[in-house]
Amino acid sequence: AQIALEQGYEARREFDARYRVVMGQTSDAIIFVAAQSGRVEDANAGAAALFGVKLDALVGSGLSSLVTEPSSGATLEALMTATLGDDQSDVAVRSKRVQSQLRLRPTIFRSGGQRMLMCQVSDVDAAAPTQDTAA
Amino acid sequence: AQIALEQGYEARREFDARYRVVMGQTSDAIIFVAAQSGRVEDANAGAAALFGVKLDALVGSGLSSLVTEPSSGATLEALMTATLGDDQSDVAVRSKRVQSQLRLRPTIFRSGGQRMLMCQVSDVDAAAPTQDTAA
Repeated sequence: AQIALEQGYEARREFDARYRVVMGQTSDAIIFVAAQSGRVEDANAGAAALFGVKLDALVGSGLSSLVTEPSSGATLEALMTATLGDDQSDVAVRSKRVQSQLRLRPTIFRSGGQRMLMCQVSDVDAAAPTQDTAA
Repeated sequence: AQIALEQGYEARREFDARYRVVMGQTSDAIIFVAAQSGRVEDANAGAAALFGVKLDALVGSGLSSLVTEPSSGATLEALMTATLGDDQSDVAVRSKRVQSQLRLRPTIFRSGGQRMLMCQVSDVDAAAPTQDTAA
């Protein structure tokens, strides 16, 4: 039953509308990454700006094409590990396109039968609103 | 067809999951208000804290029970008016419960056949990240 529900239902619309508005209006830069594949499933304009790519190019990209350090496999592992602790912790990465240091703050959840990571993206150089600024 | 889709479909789950995670994790305080009734349709913990009520009491409340100034009818009108301009503008209100000045930044959209306002809530006293701090 779960699998059959994954695509195409118009019933999604109401939550989809709220979801789109929140993603568009929030002051956070956000990407959703499939935990298994590392594929960016969705993102907002703030995240696209930080990664230095267009939004429609960001969505569908793999983490490996976006960050250089750690390597994409290790980045996924680091993100998963960061979700295990009680308090939220960040993973430092380097953007391939803009050569800037970014921080990803992951939250893991289940969506459509697969594990998904929501990552809040912030620019280390521009601002460091987290406790540990010593990256 | 639209009306029949409004309630109860399991197909909502996937977007619902993403929506819930974003609402829970975003650094913004957010309420969704039905434009016609002024009823709070959904909110997050950050908004509940600013209004000084529990989250499950906030959801379902009318704006009139939350803010004293302007009156709730006028608040709704002011929110609708604020969505008309090209640039985002805020509406100043006073919270009934905590007697603090809050700002609501509305975005209007359609959801399930009705107009809905997403409002980003901020505390004027604590921080004023907007351009015009002279409320």
